[in-house]
Amino acid sequence: MKQSQLFTKTRREAPKDEVATNAQLLIRAGYVHKEMAGVYSFLPLGLRALNKIVGIIREEMDAIGGQEVSLAALQDKKAWEASGRWSDDVIDVWFKTSLKNGGELGLGTTHEEPLTALMKDHIRSFRDLPAAVYQFQTKFRNETRAKSGIMRGREFLMKDLYSFNVDEKAHAEFYEKAKAAYVRIFDRLGIGDKTYVTFASGGSFSKYSHEFQTVSEAGEDTIYVHEGKRIAVNKEVLNDEVLDNLGLKRGDLVEMKAIETGNIFTLGARYSEALGLSYKDAEGKSVPVFMGSYGIGPGRAMGAIVELLSDERGLVWPESVAPFGVHLVALFDEGGAVKRAADELYAKLTEEGVEVLYDDRDASAGEKFGDADLIGIPKRYVISAKTLKDGHVEVKDRATGKVSMERFS
Amino acid sequence: MKQSQLFTKTRREAPKDEVATNAQLLIRAGYVHKEMAGVYSFLPLGLRALNKIVGIIREEMDAIGGQEVSLAALQDKKAWEASGRWSDDVIDVWFKTSLKNGGELGLGTTHEEPLTALMKDHIRSFRDLPAAVYQFQTKFRNETRAKSGIMRGREFLMKDLYSFNVDEKAHAEFYEKAKAAYVRIFDRLGIGDKTYVTFASGGSFSKYSHEFQTVSEAGEDTIYVHEGKRIAVNKEVLNDEVLDNLGLKRGDLVEMKAIETGNIFTLGARYSEALGLSYKDAEGKSVPVFMGSYGIGPGRAMGAIVELLSDERGLVWPESVAPFGVHLVALFDEGGAVKRAADELYAKLTEEGVEVLYDDRDASAGEKFGDADLIGIPKRYVISAKTLKDGHVEVKDRATGKVSMERFS
Repeated sequence: MKQSQLFTKTRREAPKDEVATNAQLLIRAGYVHKEMAGVYSFLPLGLRALNKIVGIIREEMDAIGGQEVSLAALQDKKAWEASGRWSDDVIDVWFKTSLKNGGELGLGTTHEEPLTALMKDHIRSFRDLPAAVYQFQTKFRNETRAKSGIMRGREFLMKDLYSFNVDEKAHAEFYEKAKAAYVRIFDRLGIGDKTYVTFASGGSFSKYSHEFQTVSEAGEDTIYVHEGKRIAVNKEVLNDEVLDNLGLKRGDLVEMKAIETGNIFTLGARYSEALGLSYKDAEGKSVPVFMGSYGIGPGRAMGAIVELLSDERGLVWPESVAPFGVHLVALFDEGGAVKRAADELYAKLTEEGVEVLYDDRDASAGEKFGDADLIGIPKRYVISAKTLKDGHVEVKDRATGKVSMERFS
Repeated sequence: MKQSQLFTKTRREAPKDEVATNAQLLIRAGYVHKEMAGVYSFLPLGLRALNKIVGIIREEMDAIGGQEVSLAALQDKKAWEASGRWSDDVIDVWFKTSLKNGGELGLGTTHEEPLTALMKDHIRSFRDLPAAVYQFQTKFRNETRAKSGIMRGREFLMKDLYSFNVDEKAHAEFYEKAKAAYVRIFDRLGIGDKTYVTFASGGSFSKYSHEFQTVSEAGEDTIYVHEGKRIAVNKEVLNDEVLDNLGLKRGDLVEMKAIETGNIFTLGARYSEALGLSYKDAEGKSVPVFMGSYGIGPGRAMGAIVELLSDERGLVWPESVAPFGVHLVALFDEGGAVKRAADELYAKLTEEGVEVLYDDRDASAGEKFGDADLIGIPKRYVISAKTLKDGHVEVKDRATGKVSMERFS
């Protein structure tokens, strides 16, 4: 894409009320727009990066047999009354609204209830199991404190997968597959080395749930990391019994702040019993379906990447997430030779399938380099009268700053 | 995909309270799930078809220079008060809710206000124009009457594009490009021959707006069609002056029911003046930006396709929209030869990039054919002991019923 066509502009300052580093940088670089605390719109560069994250997660969910759906945001209270979660005392982040012709509605904060109810149309026999169903869908949460930029939204995109199995054993197998898929996701997003499988509170159907905690000073959670074993324990559950249980010694653990970038839960029969989702086993006996849930927020992951990888000059994207692979910066000369060479290179790279942002604007070298640093595309190609004279393009790596010259042909 | 893995099941009857043909068929075939009147969730087959429609629209919007964004659904009332549209008397389909820590919010029914406000950060000079910005985003409308299935949702996906130009002349050029793009979209969706560019009420900044009306008994609108000129006039504006104006004679027009599948509007300075979106022209004078808006609902388009093309046996998809290109139906024999041949053909087609739904279920021929008719994939390949004996696959066209034999190799 030609940057002269991109409608967004960079800016020196983020809005004064924006306190989160991730949102400050993303707003300044023109990736997102702040509508109000905890509510952000995604602009072309931001949406491209978000869609890269979505694409990676989708591939990994498909690889473990997930089937994609898209559930409604508007929630009929019936299913939530059945599970006992309609009350604001139980889910304290409900947004509620009402129909003009009567009846109270909620905005989905999560989707266990409607999906469990929906599956009653499709699961009857043990032959219909297992099933794994996921979506990328907007969640609404009425947060009183929304100061972490795109990492804690009142409205945000969520990938939520729900698994349906015949029993705990079959569930446990899927759960491990999902856990491994999550590890792959964070690796592919470029934050795997900072992300720990973390033992957290399990609820009624299992001893533990697992969080994926990405170490960062911007995090809201406190975890205790065992670097050797690459695992952690959430402060909320840390006690002698748990340490014993996991074979960990308190002295080997290091306290760190972390961002909860993913979580996976065993739900057991909590929702299937409440909503009547059962199957007939081989003997014809009715058995409640054994469920699990697996969440990851693409926007929160994007915010975590920004918090971890950015520097004082701006954003730094891993290749897998960057809105474009190459930022082609042309410093035009009077004669037009640079423009011709840059146009040609842009056409060539685009034809080869490289996603290029081509800075073809009438602007100073300083402005172009400053914007390129802020926007954070991994590879910068610079063409100027100088590089052209030597038949070269200057290639600069945004993350390392390493510069090399490549022949221009 | 193997049908034995698809979690959705077909059903003989739609829910009793579902009165719309499109939703009845889509529910029976397992494409959508009804959550409540006007609120539907999309299941794997439905989401695949919807995404095909989204893909076509996206290509056409990109081709006219559209840049994709994703705006928030939650609406701060400030921008809407500025335009005078916060009141329920002005927009009578608002869903409203409130923040736990104070303040009323709306759920976006459309996005002129927030996008106009957002563009103030990016448009300052005539050099920043033109711009065309679009999104695929969920709209919420508090409809009291929601009886048209997925064609009139309380929550539905909308493609809305907004154009920003220096003046009416530049706007008019873009408007014609957008109109042509819409014509291409409906052609590609397989309902172009039934869709008419329709003159409708223009509002304050232009004589007419244009609707795209798809002729169907399921439609809620009445239009007067001039078949020779391939245009129509909405009943709402039909009078002698309009006929005169358009050079039409009442006697040449035929009254028809139609579904409003798209609409394009000239907005002029209605929102840019209200919200202060202006640019500096070449002389440094401040001028309000000239705007237009262009809407099309992928879900409504999907509903219209179902209404128009389905038959008594079920859904009939055009190739461009079908969730899969080929439905491979294997009628297994005892020896396993059919299964081996079908597995092989499935692998071969998949490798060639054909999207195949492979009915590998243990089910009767009648059940498989009935489901295939209901699901409506354009091409059905049948492999049985009989076809295999002759070295053939039976190929049946869902729309025409035409059968041919193709060599199986």
